[in-house]
Amino acid sequence: MNANAGSGAYARLTARFARIATVREAAAMLGWDAAAMMPPGGAAARGDQLAVLAGLAHEMLTAPALADDLAAADPGPDRWAAANLRLMRRAHARATALPGDLVEAQARANAACETIWREARRQADFARVAPALAEVVRLTCRQAEALSAALGLAPYDALMDLYQPGIGAADVAPVFAAYQAFLRRALPLAEAIQARRPPPPGPRGPFPAAQQEALCRRLAGAVGLEAEHFRLDRSAHPFCGGTPTDVRITTRYDEGDFAGAVLGVLHESGHALYERGLPVAHARQPVGEAAGMAVHESQSLLIEMQACRSDAYLGWLAPLLAETFGAAAGEAAGFAPDTLARRWRRVGRGFIRVDADELTYPAHVILRFRLEQALVAGDLPVPDLPGAWRDAIGELLGITPPDDAQGCLQDIHWFDGAIGYFPSYTLGAMAAAQLMAAARRAVGGLDAALARGDLGPLVGWLREAVHSRGSLLGFNELLRAATGKPLDPADFEAHLTARYLTDPS
Amino acid sequence: MNANAGSGAYARLTARFARIATVREAAAMLGWDAAAMMPPGGAAARGDQLAVLAGLAHEMLTAPALADDLAAADPGPDRWAAANLRLMRRAHARATALPGDLVEAQARANAACETIWREARRQADFARVAPALAEVVRLTCRQAEALSAALGLAPYDALMDLYQPGIGAADVAPVFAAYQAFLRRALPLAEAIQARRPPPPGPRGPFPAAQQEALCRRLAGAVGLEAEHFRLDRSAHPFCGGTPTDVRITTRYDEGDFAGAVLGVLHESGHALYERGLPVAHARQPVGEAAGMAVHESQSLLIEMQACRSDAYLGWLAPLLAETFGAAAGEAAGFAPDTLARRWRRVGRGFIRVDADELTYPAHVILRFRLEQALVAGDLPVPDLPGAWRDAIGELLGITPPDDAQGCLQDIHWFDGAIGYFPSYTLGAMAAAQLMAAARRAVGGLDAALARGDLGPLVGWLREAVHSRGSLLGFNELLRAATGKPLDPADFEAHLTARYLTDPS
Repeated sequence: MNANAGSGAYARLTARFARIATVREAAAMLGWDAAAMMPPGGAAARGDQLAVLAGLAHEMLTAPALADDLAAADPGPDRWAAANLRLMRRAHARATALPGDLVEAQARANAACETIWREARRQADFARVAPALAEVVRLTCRQAEALSAALGLAPYDALMDLYQPGIGAADVAPVFAAYQAFLRRALPLAEAIQARRPPPPGPRGPFPAAQQEALCRRLAGAVGLEAEHFRLDRSAHPFCGGTPTDVRITTRYDEGDFAGAVLGVLHESGHALYERGLPVAHARQPVGEAAGMAVHESQSLLIEMQACRSDAYLGWLAPLLAETFGAAAGEAAGFAPDTLARRWRRVGRGFIRVDADELTYPAHVILRFRLEQALVAGDLPVPDLPGAWRDAIGELLGITPPDDAQGCLQDIHWFDGAIGYFPSYTLGAMAAAQLMAAARRAVGGLDAALARGDLGPLVGWLREAVHSRGSLLGFNELLRAATGKPLDPADFEAHLTARYLTDPS
Repeated sequence: MNANAGSGAYARLTARFARIATVREAAAMLGWDAAAMMPPGGAAARGDQLAVLAGLAHEMLTAPALADDLAAADPGPDRWAAANLRLMRRAHARATALPGDLVEAQARANAACETIWREARRQADFARVAPALAEVVRLTCRQAEALSAALGLAPYDALMDLYQPGIGAADVAPVFAAYQAFLRRALPLAEAIQARRPPPPGPRGPFPAAQQEALCRRLAGAVGLEAEHFRLDRSAHPFCGGTPTDVRITTRYDEGDFAGAVLGVLHESGHALYERGLPVAHARQPVGEAAGMAVHESQSLLIEMQACRSDAYLGWLAPLLAETFGAAAGEAAGFAPDTLARRWRRVGRGFIRVDADELTYPAHVILRFRLEQALVAGDLPVPDLPGAWRDAIGELLGITPPDDAQGCLQDIHWFDGAIGYFPSYTLGAMAAAQLMAAARRAVGGLDAALARGDLGPLVGWLREAVHSRGSLLGFNELLRAATGKPLDPADFEAHLTARYLTDPS
């Protein structure tokens, strides 16, 4: 192989991966449409469209000529090209690791299990879904074994790697153990401080959906999303979809409380800003993509939790909310910054992960991290899952769910075949705190800007420190480049200490 | 080749064509999104997505293995399978007829010409776009030659065949010549009858877009579109897109007059009903598709022009319009059925095709049919087009456009490379009248149902006579099966005579 052949092979690879990415963009738009626009009668045809596009992308990725080019390619001295080629090889190894019959069996088993799970959750009847879940777990273990062999990772790490490349159980376990210890001290203290004042008044609606929507659109614009490049629509489950130049965020409106829509849109806007800020020069290349689910979650939580639930931002937002909904600002009307802060930063021991506060959320993740490792290792038979769940939530939060619908049936993830994803949520929360602390050090007047509703300085710093780096760096390397150190939960604990363990009175 | 091998080849072909059709469905949805939803910043990425999907569909259609199966396939005795295989071979012949460099050159030349045309039309400056149009025509002639050789058709017929398979200039020329003679007598008479009464009062708005939209949605439902299977949205240029189980129609709202939106949605609903009624058993097969652009246009014009501009339907619609817009029904308020009828069935000699009435519209098409044949034959050099246009519109309608923006620059079609499409409009109008006459003979109480706003009997007949036949039959065979005769302009002339040449007073 001479240098020219290598360079030719690399150039061909970038063209092939761009084409694959473009097919995936088409699929992403159709996925958004299915959730936000499609009439129900289109569902069957849409399923076929998405399956065919996924099949074509898989064929393109596993084409023999692509493998030949991967073997021959020489990216030259450029570090972006070198990282890109490494990621291409990784994507190819993942795609070719799984036998076709396993991929099909998983698709079928996951879809079947998800359907049964919906009914089982409604009836709080774990036994009903246990056989289907056992099959999902069995096939996921086969998948983990196959990926393990191809990637040189332990089986559970090979699953984690699908969501946050480069992070395995050994990275997460000590961090989670330390958090568990922190929480044991912190939660009673936070509860005691909170109990010194009566609960804040609740929202007094109704808050018309059209007004909430107009406000959410304004807030998304205010955090930096350009009207030229994004849409805000409605869907049953809020998400951020689309493509970097055409980001589609969705939310839902509860006319009894605007909190879900407002905070949800700010959260999805964080995801959207990340997509908007990815390096244009590497668009549609593996190295130009977001750096993983934990990094993605760090961006949404940074905007929602770190920036927009801060005292500074709430001081700006509270009067805007009052103005939007035609209410008087102030404590009595429930629109004072302090009221909002106490409502939106209330801690408690709950059963449901998605309703959990910032402080106890990691406990829900730690529980799942522990149980899904045991499932994959074969140490926890599926029928024993409800009991193991009750034990763990009792140990972590001192509570016992009244039934499995509020226990091990609450999340779709495992029943849909997503095992290895949960740790990303808490890694993201910790990274968000670490990045926010670094941003405060690097950028003067960050909180003064937030107090004007201006996220410009923060987002500008994130663009440079995180977004524009795409997948050039792994999780810890990215944090080191942006903050001077790999993941360090100290910033998250410091944030929680300041917000929840310090008596403001 | 034995029967089994043939049957296996045919089965593989149906799977291949289903996959190709599914990719095209994805592209159709993305095309709708681009027109109705996409923020402008997504345009460049969308162009790439559509190009890649078109390229993949083309690769799939021209794959050597598909050609082998086409040669070997034996569809058996079933007439649907036989027709399907014939259409597959035709699609393959079309796809392989064009050299790749020509396809690319056309895509570039058409896009470049369209861009220049927008500016040229704004400035009424034909000279500005003439060189780009000459290049488009030159490449279209090369395309016509290539298709001509592959399909065994004359060059211009090979272009027409892209839009309405099986119909060529020899089918159209005598029909158009006869219409020209009819129009020479009919137009002055229609104008004289119309002049006996003062013009009807115009609409007195504003008519809020939200009210128009709610009404249009109701009307689309009333003509038979099920909420489960369609959406109505807004776009700059109304169209019917999507897929048979997920039809997307669009319109635009002029708050000064509801006519455009109401009649436009009824028109697009006719297209949508056709797609909804295609044979499910042959979905995603060539034989299960709509039978061509002229047949498609016959369905939209049948609903809009034949059914919904009839006295019977307007008698039902007029009070509904008055109720929708909070106006008193009746002549004085402009909401009497007779007022609507006179406003929506007004004839006149205009320069602009898309604004033309039913009687003079074919003149605009005849003009274009004549000139585009001359362009393709090389008998009309592009620089001479404005003069030829002025001569023709003078001969046909006795008018002279004040500038080329109201002459040969008005339509996008030629400048976008669409030559051979125009005849479909008038073939569709004529087929619509012929089908409506047959429906009236076949279905009792059709007009009584229209007078109740009920299109059920008409649409039921269309389902059986047209929609459910897909592409099993060619244009004239379909008309013969549905009406007992091939295309016969007599029904259209009879319709126009009854509507425009009969003095109601």
